Amino acid sequence: MDSLATSHATPDRTSPLLTRRMANHRSSPSVPTNMIMADISKTEDSNVVAPVAQENGGTTYFFTQNTARQNMSVVMPPFHVFPGTPPNIEYMSLKANAPSFFMADELRQAIVQKHALTMLTVDTEQDPSVPSEVDNYHSLFPLEPTPENPLQKSSTFGFVTSCYKAIKYKDGLPYCLRRIHGFRQVNEKCMVLVEMWKKLQHANVVQLREVFTSKAFGEHSLIFAHDYYAGAETMMSRHFQNPNNNYASKAKWNGGTARQNAGLLPESLIWTYVVQLTSALRCIHTAGLACRVMDPTKIIITDKSRIRVNGVGIFDVLGYDNSHANPRAHMQQYQQDDLVALGKVVLALACNSVSSIQRDNLHNSIELVLRNYSNDLKNLILYLLSPQQRPHNVNDIMPMIGARFYTQLDAALLRCDVIENEMSKEVENGRLFRMVSKLGVINERPEFSLEPTWSETGDRYLLKLFRDHLFHQVTETGAPWVDLAHIVQCLNKLDAGVPEKVCLMSRDEQNVLVVSYAELKKAFEKCFSELSSAATA
Amino acid sequence: MDSLATSHATPDRTSPLLTRRMANHRSSPSVPTNMIMADISKTEDSNVVAPVAQENGGTTYFFTQNTARQNMSVVMPPFHVFPGTPPNIEYMSLKANAPSFFMADELRQAIVQKHALTMLTVDTEQDPSVPSEVDNYHSLFPLEPTPENPLQKSSTFGFVTSCYKAIKYKDGLPYCLRRIHGFRQVNEKCMVLVEMWKKLQHANVVQLREVFTSKAFGEHSLIFAHDYYAGAETMMSRHFQNPNNNYASKAKWNGGTARQNAGLLPESLIWTYVVQLTSALRCIHTAGLACRVMDPTKIIITDKSRIRVNGVGIFDVLGYDNSHANPRAHMQQYQQDDLVALGKVVLALACNSVSSIQRDNLHNSIELVLRNYSNDLKNLILYLLSPQQRPHNVNDIMPMIGARFYTQLDAALLRCDVIENEMSKEVENGRLFRMVSKLGVINERPEFSLEPTWSETGDRYLLKLFRDHLFHQVTETGAPWVDLAHIVQCLNKLDAGVPEKVCLMSRDEQNVLVVSYAELKKAFEKCFSELSSAATA
Repeated sequence: MDSLATSHATPDRTSPLLTRRMANHRSSPSVPTNMIMADISKTEDSNVVAPVAQENGGTTYFFTQNTARQNMSVVMPPFHVFPGTPPNIEYMSLKANAPSFFMADELRQAIVQKHALTMLTVDTEQDPSVPSEVDNYHSLFPLEPTPENPLQKSSTFGFVTSCYKAIKYKDGLPYCLRRIHGFRQVNEKCMVLVEMWKKLQHANVVQLREVFTSKAFGEHSLIFAHDYYAGAETMMSRHFQNPNNNYASKAKWNGGTARQNAGLLPESLIWTYVVQLTSALRCIHTAGLACRVMDPTKIIITDKSRIRVNGVGIFDVLGYDNSHANPRAHMQQYQQDDLVALGKVVLALACNSVSSIQRDNLHNSIELVLRNYSNDLKNLILYLLSPQQRPHNVNDIMPMIGARFYTQLDAALLRCDVIENEMSKEVENGRLFRMVSKLGVINERPEFSLEPTWSETGDRYLLKLFRDHLFHQVTETGAPWVDLAHIVQCLNKLDAGVPEKVCLMSRDEQNVLVVSYAELKKAFEKCFSELSSAATA
Repeated sequence: MDSLATSHATPDRTSPLLTRRMANHRSSPSVPTNMIMADISKTEDSNVVAPVAQENGGTTYFFTQNTARQNMSVVMPPFHVFPGTPPNIEYMSLKANAPSFFMADELRQAIVQKHALTMLTVDTEQDPSVPSEVDNYHSLFPLEPTPENPLQKSSTFGFVTSCYKAIKYKDGLPYCLRRIHGFRQVNEKCMVLVEMWKKLQHANVVQLREVFTSKAFGEHSLIFAHDYYAGAETMMSRHFQNPNNNYASKAKWNGGTARQNAGLLPESLIWTYVVQLTSALRCIHTAGLACRVMDPTKIIITDKSRIRVNGVGIFDVLGYDNSHANPRAHMQQYQQDDLVALGKVVLALACNSVSSIQRDNLHNSIELVLRNYSNDLKNLILYLLSPQQRPHNVNDIMPMIGARFYTQLDAALLRCDVIENEMSKEVENGRLFRMVSKLGVINERPEFSLEPTWSETGDRYLLKLFRDHLFHQVTETGAPWVDLAHIVQCLNKLDAGVPEKVCLMSRDEQNVLVVSYAELKKAFEKCFSELSSAATA
């Protein structure tokens, strides 16, 4: 069987049996040429507008029957078909220096994998360390390994923390819960900042949804609920895999040996990250907040190069300074710290080592950047890391990014095109599956309302013969004729209820019923609604 | 029946019949808790990698069985299920000042409409003015109304032109053909430029694919084949609908009356266009080419605000200057013209009138922009339209766009997220549809290899009973039990071939077969391959 996409694209086939029948019975099913498009899809709110072609000399890339010029016989497909991949997708080539993204096959695979990861659960009977629920959340699943020493504190937050995927009762959606162990005193004033974070929506920030305290873990814990991104990886684990390269480690780093240079990241990838991180920072700073978690362990990567800042809002609660009446007193300083932290992230990426940012290595690190990357990248790092005469600002970075904005945008738009095309291949499958399932519910039903022959009589008999027409075609020699395109085409005609007629033959070949798809559709809907109303009665 | 997406999300249901059977026969199907994920999807090259959780203090947003900490009982869903919409999509709010895009429902509707438009054809028997084929293309469909005067020349190109959608024989894909009537002399030298255009791929440029001459229209014609975008509209028809507003018309325009101000476009939309158009120009100029068609009648809009420059390369052939040996002699001048043309487009958009760009109206137009829009927009227009001291450059425009790059990028990324989520809802439906179709091909087959009871015996009998289990469930009272979730769940288990057992009861309720999904899968594959090999024999 062909893939569904390609078989959609062959709407003109006729089954061999039909050809024979047409020759035998001369009741050729006529395809009306000037048919109005009937009901493209029952499941959509399909209000297909009739755009008006303007007589203004502009190219109008559409034409519907209403606006057709006189004497032009527009033939609309009377049922829905998939027209195939457009050339801009079919012949798309990936560009050097542009952020890469998943093409069709990888995309499907990534989606399937994300689904599987989202559905992972823990057998809580066998593993009692994970509570079966935490306040409004259930189905907790640990996202981090338990530290060997249970008192080991997070190098970022300075508290013992743990992290779970969990499903919220209220909406059934997956969230990421970060538990701060043994934290009981939450200053009410900092909730102002939490409220601000909950409103901050940005493509490169993992949104904070809720902060609450809980005793579900057997002690006072503070819980932060952020959005969950299945399959995300931290920048730390993707790019700084060597455990000795830890941000906090003192491992000696000799910048710039040949071996290390060979493993450097492509500059385009670093700029992709820079644009996304500055985009996040700009949005955060503009909102009057500070990120405070600009750190490879708190930046998550999904797919090939999409990044998001995770853990926002946590420091605003944990590190809240009681001595100030105004929760935003230190905000400007924190924003400056964000920019320095960004500089460190970029430098570490450019040197492909977290040790590169240690004070002793700094000179060598900048040398390495100079040798291997553009001046813009070096200037960006120097700007962010150099002592400040006047407060730094994200906006000052924009000229260094320059035309790379266009590269990013071009890639993002092309990626949209690719995904939309994949989506358009699939958009009809759900409808077809529902139809064929409904048909299955009706056909060959052993009994209905105490009538054992229900599925063999009346309208159901028509549908039974139609089922044979769909699935049990044979060639002249009696060999099975298996063609998914035929099945798709017949189902689409049934769904649209087109006036085209079809010859249905009884199994003993003694009777031929000539019936239109419109009549079949009526019978189909009547029978199914009979069943459903009996089911819900 | 629920929508498929929601019914996917309920994997734990058990059919009422099964519950009864379980009570009656005590052969409870056990769901193994520690099952390895079996074969997520047959149709994908599903090589689900087992990512390794790093012990580096970073959050790892995944966990597979291999990497689970000791004593943790990870339960993977043994078959594939759709986990529902993630919160970042579910609660996405549209932002002011950001380019808007289609959300889920609109997206599906737009896709269905594009499919229908792509499939439109003309009945050439009734309309002989359209040739049945032109060189390598067939199924021509006019995209522009025929001008009342057949000698009316295109205001842009200065020739009589017409425009068709057509399918290329070689790849079966739709293209847009623009025919230049009565053009026979093509200078070979300009083909250098055509070759350059054919290589230029950009998210905001309609790619040129081919240029050829043809006599298929009964005279010498020159044909340009570009990519076809179904449902695209020109900027002229979308924004300057009033026929009197024609770029070329002399209609009096009194800039800045209250009525017109009320109809002004939002500034964010104008910047969305500016960013895309400058992105296209930058790419074109960097490639050593000039656009030459920066005109509202040649800029096409798809969806809410995605624009592309159309008709590139046409002027390079039509207006080729024979007096120069070098085909790129005038390129720098043409590039400067592009920037002036861009200024006119932006001014016309800002005033919402093509008359605004006429010299007499210019002062009033700038006044209008000043009153209603930001200084950046005014400066951009003045920069583009003012006489040049030194050659203008697209790069000079970037500072005026400034942080709006971030807005565009944020919107593009969010749009990707929305489409990807829709795609992930649909990604399994094709597979389910293929399975249920295959089952239909096997079940109740009247005869196979001369054996009338083929579908009633052996493995097929199992599959027949499984079909009843799928579709013909009834409740205690004998009422139909119709649940798409049950159908989806059983098919997914069948596809994965899980060891879980299912009780299949004969129609007379005298026999119960306890069979695993793995056995059913084996039978299913065996029967279908029997049929397919007979079909292809």
